[in-house]
Amino acid sequence: MKLAYSLLLPLAGVSASVINYKRDGDSKAITNTTFSLNRPSVHFTPSHGWMNDPNGLWYDAKEEDWHLYYQYNPAATIWGTPLYWGHAVSKDLTSWTDYGASLGPGSDDAGAFSGSMVIDYNNTSGFFNSSVDPRQRAVAVWTLSKGPSQAQHISYSLDGGYTFQHYSDNAVLDINSSNFRDPKVFWHEGENGEDGRWIMAVAESQVFSVLFYSSPNLKNWTLESNFTHHGWTGTQYECPGLVKVPYDSVADSSSNSSDSKPDSAWVLFVSINPGGPLGGSVTQYFVGDFNGTHFTPIDDQTRFLDMGKDYYALQTFFNTPNEKDVYGIAWASNWQYAQQAPTDPWRSSMSLVRQFTLKDFSTNPNSADVVLNSQPVLNYDALRKNGTTYSITNYTVTSENGKKIKLDNPSGSLEFHLEYVFNGSPDIKSNVFADLSLYFKGNNDDNEYLRLGYETNGGAFFLDRGHTKIPFVKENLFFNHQLAVTNPVSNYTTNVFDVYGVIDKNIIELYFDNGNVVSTNTFFFSTNNVIGEIDIKSPYDKAYTINSFNVTQFNL
Amino acid sequence: MKLAYSLLLPLAGVSASVINYKRDGDSKAITNTTFSLNRPSVHFTPSHGWMNDPNGLWYDAKEEDWHLYYQYNPAATIWGTPLYWGHAVSKDLTSWTDYGASLGPGSDDAGAFSGSMVIDYNNTSGFFNSSVDPRQRAVAVWTLSKGPSQAQHISYSLDGGYTFQHYSDNAVLDINSSNFRDPKVFWHEGENGEDGRWIMAVAESQVFSVLFYSSPNLKNWTLESNFTHHGWTGTQYECPGLVKVPYDSVADSSSNSSDSKPDSAWVLFVSINPGGPLGGSVTQYFVGDFNGTHFTPIDDQTRFLDMGKDYYALQTFFNTPNEKDVYGIAWASNWQYAQQAPTDPWRSSMSLVRQFTLKDFSTNPNSADVVLNSQPVLNYDALRKNGTTYSITNYTVTSENGKKIKLDNPSGSLEFHLEYVFNGSPDIKSNVFADLSLYFKGNNDDNEYLRLGYETNGGAFFLDRGHTKIPFVKENLFFNHQLAVTNPVSNYTTNVFDVYGVIDKNIIELYFDNGNVVSTNTFFFSTNNVIGEIDIKSPYDKAYTINSFNVTQFNL
Repeated sequence: MKLAYSLLLPLAGVSASVINYKRDGDSKAITNTTFSLNRPSVHFTPSHGWMNDPNGLWYDAKEEDWHLYYQYNPAATIWGTPLYWGHAVSKDLTSWTDYGASLGPGSDDAGAFSGSMVIDYNNTSGFFNSSVDPRQRAVAVWTLSKGPSQAQHISYSLDGGYTFQHYSDNAVLDINSSNFRDPKVFWHEGENGEDGRWIMAVAESQVFSVLFYSSPNLKNWTLESNFTHHGWTGTQYECPGLVKVPYDSVADSSSNSSDSKPDSAWVLFVSINPGGPLGGSVTQYFVGDFNGTHFTPIDDQTRFLDMGKDYYALQTFFNTPNEKDVYGIAWASNWQYAQQAPTDPWRSSMSLVRQFTLKDFSTNPNSADVVLNSQPVLNYDALRKNGTTYSITNYTVTSENGKKIKLDNPSGSLEFHLEYVFNGSPDIKSNVFADLSLYFKGNNDDNEYLRLGYETNGGAFFLDRGHTKIPFVKENLFFNHQLAVTNPVSNYTTNVFDVYGVIDKNIIELYFDNGNVVSTNTFFFSTNNVIGEIDIKSPYDKAYTINSFNVTQFNL
Repeated sequence: MKLAYSLLLPLAGVSASVINYKRDGDSKAITNTTFSLNRPSVHFTPSHGWMNDPNGLWYDAKEEDWHLYYQYNPAATIWGTPLYWGHAVSKDLTSWTDYGASLGPGSDDAGAFSGSMVIDYNNTSGFFNSSVDPRQRAVAVWTLSKGPSQAQHISYSLDGGYTFQHYSDNAVLDINSSNFRDPKVFWHEGENGEDGRWIMAVAESQVFSVLFYSSPNLKNWTLESNFTHHGWTGTQYECPGLVKVPYDSVADSSSNSSDSKPDSAWVLFVSINPGGPLGGSVTQYFVGDFNGTHFTPIDDQTRFLDMGKDYYALQTFFNTPNEKDVYGIAWASNWQYAQQAPTDPWRSSMSLVRQFTLKDFSTNPNSADVVLNSQPVLNYDALRKNGTTYSITNYTVTSENGKKIKLDNPSGSLEFHLEYVFNGSPDIKSNVFADLSLYFKGNNDDNEYLRLGYETNGGAFFLDRGHTKIPFVKENLFFNHQLAVTNPVSNYTTNVFDVYGVIDKNIIELYFDNGNVVSTNTFFFSTNNVIGEIDIKSPYDKAYTINSFNVTQFNL
């Protein structure tokens, strides 16, 4: 289930203390329940101020550093100009050092809007000389939003991504539009002896277009194609991104040799806000082919990357240690309420880093489809080494007695993995609510709890994040309490279901069916009230048997 | 906004008493709050037993009767076999006479699953002789589900749709599938001198296919095409339907004459269950062209017909008085909780009848798109004649004083139309919840209320149906309390918004932007507690001005 991060990179020198901040902002004392000061530990948050989309994700192969930039207003905990790219660096995608404001817009009434980073190994831009290691020739491609204009700019770094020079001849791409933004650029190798070139996917947001441009040098861009009016459109498109994703092939040498599945396919991400079906923000993806100029999807299906309410503006890393691996980060909030979320002196966190692969997927016994599978990437070796594990195995839940797990010295950050089988029961008619529920309760006040369950008549998982004393949760009507997770596939012959989750102070990431269906949602308990107990209950005798339930508390 | 039904048909002899039942089931006395016995008045419900999809909708041009059939289990308030087509008839699409079980499956372990009705004017089937008026030559095309088999059967009526004879040589279409159902048939006129023929859209559910078949006689069917893997797929496709829908052209002779918009387009409806993004059931549609064999959508967008949780299995009427008009009915529930809804001795209601047209639609200031517009069809002349109207005009809401409307002799059934402008306010920063809310409160207990609002920072409407003492609402976690309505378009230059609604005991239908965006949701108050008061509130002074708010209580 979980990606053993340590298989990919040596972790020498990485301490298990997680997220290093300039902590000055934290001294502000807010103790009432208006706020929830339970800052996530393994999800990145800025030390203070406002954060939204992840930007410019890249891996520095020389320093073996991961770089994350982010939409950042250091001056307030709401969005506003001047808007910067903030910057954070990690060795292990778990512990981050935050460097605060980085690339800026150049004037107080403007924003350095979202964009991406490329490594210009071959100095196609001419910005670099031999003093800059080819692995660190970072060029940011981003949107300057100023007044009614949105145009694409480039900036380059001579110090490995810490400071930037704006290109003197910006903008490099301006179509006189007020809604033209979020360039994501990658290098596309030439085929049939042609030269390689840069490809940009960029949104013309309010006409529902992903425009593809090409460039030899990051400065001169030529329109190649327009992927328009596909999938879920909502009110506008944002944050497109195109990447080649490997199929996660089953290592089964006896498999049917006539199965000539390709070893990869192209995936186009497009975020929608406002106008997601749950309200606000949502990220979708298309699976298809890219021929160097045009993206062609394999079908006209609409697929969402995450079924929760808090997973937006997904971007993938430029470069990973193993070139084929695709890693990405999303913003773990929703524009419908992000600026009202009860945290201080920061607002918003990023999702965990996830690794994406394509997998065979059957949402019903007769279908054969493909899905983008998500796996969390964390420094599990370190997190588990200091953690404490609790286990339940082979336990048939009775209506009178559930199971309780009480966590020692609750840290608020944990992982769990539940595998269970639905046995059925003669008592369970179609007019009852026959759930198996996990109640994740606060350690100081167990009236604050998160409830995650599966119910057999509804045939789905649900999450209830409404049981809390934090006023925001009741006052903001867009902060849906009950969330259903659709397509909860099981093994159809055995009725076995599984869900893996990471809970980190005020965010829960759920990976169903080994990551084929994912749901990410924030929740807010009172300050210092973190998950301290997990109760398992079902109202019907012997309807569910827990094959295994493992909880590991991260002690950081 | 509302369709003046009386413009279409004379209403002679129609009384305003609504829904005539064999009331035997109602004598069952259940007075505790486990149930909500507030039976809808202008939404069809069966007298007793279980109901799901609408079936066989047709208009009898001889008798001027509208026929509604429905999936029906008279023996219980949950789904079960033998499953019948129930039957109800109306003169005005508002008042229905329920005839109970009609067409049946022929054995106790089987179901007469969903299907449609055609009028075989020209006796292509050979089932009729001159004793049956051509306008009443009703043939039902439906799915017999028995054991692992689902196949298409036909049955015909010699008495105008009240009783049926099964065709002796059924099934007429069997592909040895366990998930092949819900045939919707229409007559397609031949082009270029070709003969007309019957066209069936039918779902091969678990492979996400809408199959199109043709037939000269309703008995022999030829596969023409397969529309597969489009839009939102969820877990399976159900209840497809193809119909030609007129564009609602603006009567503006000065309009640009180069605008060569066609006067109609084809719309394909497909319902999804389970696996809708809100959980459970949802109805989508595609706009395109049909050439007699193949349906081709104009784009690859996913469009939902209704953004609420309770609008499923939409079917359109075969035949309407004005041939071009397209009328339809959906099931106003959701499979995630329909069998647990707190009503007795019936479960589920149908939606109002809606008229559909295609309209120009701009979800943002830069887009130009098409939308399927929905208008409720009711006998407004009768309902308003006995009703009482309350009005507020040109009122700027202050934070200290809202407005209250108290309804005399609450009937639980009403319509309202709100038009307001968002004025903005210097106090409204992005970190506040600045709503305009309507609280629809119970007359006996105002702790039970429905809250409908618009909030400017979230940029959307919301509905909260969680404030009630009915245990079901708290116990069934799929019955989402907070529902967001996306794409709430306004006039972009004036910031004027509008919403029209019909509330009918335990169901609220919302028509935003003159019906371009629709949301239908059930809600449940305690027995005899019906909407008796409407409060209008906003926490910010002068943020919103109500141009007009009209409420008409239907006294039936």
